[in-house]
Amino acid sequence: MSDERIWTAAVLVIGDEILSGRTQDKNVAQIATWLDVQGIRLREVRIVPDVEAEIVDALSALRARYDYVFTTGGIGPTHDDITVDAVAKALGVEVVIHPQARAILERYYSARGGELTEARLRMARVPAGAELIPNRMSGAPGIRIGNLFVMAGVPHITAGMLDALTGELEGGAPLVARTIGAWAPESEVADILRAAEIAHAGVAIGSYPFFREGRTGANFVIRSTDADAVAACVAAVTAGVEAAGYTVTDGGI
Amino acid sequence: MSDERIWTAAVLVIGDEILSGRTQDKNVAQIATWLDVQGIRLREVRIVPDVEAEIVDALSALRARYDYVFTTGGIGPTHDDITVDAVAKALGVEVVIHPQARAILERYYSARGGELTEARLRMARVPAGAELIPNRMSGAPGIRIGNLFVMAGVPHITAGMLDALTGELEGGAPLVARTIGAWAPESEVADILRAAEIAHAGVAIGSYPFFREGRTGANFVIRSTDADAVAACVAAVTAGVEAAGYTVTDGGI
Repeated sequence: MSDERIWTAAVLVIGDEILSGRTQDKNVAQIATWLDVQGIRLREVRIVPDVEAEIVDALSALRARYDYVFTTGGIGPTHDDITVDAVAKALGVEVVIHPQARAILERYYSARGGELTEARLRMARVPAGAELIPNRMSGAPGIRIGNLFVMAGVPHITAGMLDALTGELEGGAPLVARTIGAWAPESEVADILRAAEIAHAGVAIGSYPFFREGRTGANFVIRSTDADAVAACVAAVTAGVEAAGYTVTDGGI
Repeated sequence: MSDERIWTAAVLVIGDEILSGRTQDKNVAQIATWLDVQGIRLREVRIVPDVEAEIVDALSALRARYDYVFTTGGIGPTHDDITVDAVAKALGVEVVIHPQARAILERYYSARGGELTEARLRMARVPAGAELIPNRMSGAPGIRIGNLFVMAGVPHITAGMLDALTGELEGGAPLVARTIGAWAPESEVADILRAAEIAHAGVAIGSYPFFREGRTGANFVIRSTDADAVAACVAAVTAGVEAAGYTVTDGGI
C-alpha cells in the first residue's frame, strides 16, 4: 500500500463565536467523518477570528499543503461575514455576483413574500470563477472554487452541502478503523500497543483513556487502509491485553 | 482604551482522534471561556495529528505570535503520546524526568497497590526547565514552561489544570459581552448591525443566525472591554431591531 496516493484536506473554521467559547464547533467532527468516507484524510484544522488578514494567511498556508481546503462560517448577509472577500483576496481574484446564486436567492425570498435586499444579495457574492454548492436548507449556496470549498457555519446547513458534494471529490482508499476497549489503565497495556504498532506496518493505534463510574479504561482505535492488517493487529492487541488479565470488548466500551 | 495592552493566546490540539471525527473536541470551548475570565483573548486554534514534525512546526508558529500557548492531548503513557518530546524539540531543550512528577506518580500508584512501571514513568517526563501544573484527577501533572502550557486531552482533567492556573496568568481587561436576540432573519437587520458597529468605536458585533421550530432568528453578541460602550451599542441595536418590527429578547433566544 506504500505507493498509494493519499488525499489530504484541511478545515479552516472562521468564527469569533468559536474562539470566544460561546459556541461549540460541530463542523470539524462532521466534515472529518464525511472526508473519511470519501477516502480523504483530514490533516489539519485552524480556527481564526473574523479578520480578513488572518483568514487570507491561513488559507494561503493550508492551500499550499493539502489537496482540499474547506472553510466554515462567515457567508451570511451581515457585516461580520467576510469569508468571500478573504477567499477572493487569497486567490487573487475579484468578487462578483453569481447569476445563478442571485436567481436562487430571488426565488427563495419571493416564495416567502420577501425581496432580495442589498444585504441578502451579499449572499450571491462569490470569488470570480466559482461554482455553487447547493443548499436546500436556507437558499444561500456554498461555494466551490478549484479545491477550495466554502461552507456555512450553521452545522445542519453544512451537512446539506456535504451531502451535495458526496462522491464528487477524488479520494483514495478509505481508512479502515476498528475499535476495541478494555477496563484497563492504559499505562498497563502501553508496551503491548507499542509492540503491536511496530509489528504491523502501515497500521496506527490510537489509545484513548477514559474515567467512568469511578473506573479507568481505554479504547484502542486501530487504523489502516489495509483491512487485513487491521484485523491482524486487532487480534494481536486483543491477545496481549487479555494475557495481561483484562477482558477486551470488541467495538469499544 | 486604545493603548491598553491586549493579551493573546492560542490553543494547539494534538489529536488524531479529533481529526478522524471520532472524538468531539471539548477543550477549545472550555479553555476559551476560561481565558476570557483571565482577560486573555483566544486568537487562534490549530488541530494537528500525532506527528512530531507537525506539532513542532505549529508550536513554533504559535509561540512567535501569541503571549500564551496551550496544548491539549498526548501526555499519557502510550506510544502515541509524543507531546513532551515535540515541545522539548520546539524549545531546543532536553527531555528530563521531573523529580516531583516522579514522586507524585509513585504516591499515586502506590496508594492504588500498583507500581511506577516504565510506561507510567513516561508521564514524569518534561522539557528541561519546566514546572508542573497540578492534576488532582489522575496523578499525571500538566506542564508549564514559560508561557507554554501542556494540558491533558481528557476534558475534565484539563478543567482541573485550568482551575490550578486560575489567577496565575497576567491578563488585561476582560471583554464585556452582552447577547440580545430576535426572531428576525439576519438579512433583515444586517444594515442596523453594520451601522451600530461603525457608530460605537471599539465594539464588535457578532451575528449568529439559527433555525428552530421552523422559524428563523439570530442572536447578536456585542463585545468590548468598555462596559459603557457595550451598553450604548446594545441600546442602539435594540432600538433599530424593534423599529424594524421585531421584539428583542435580552440575554438572547
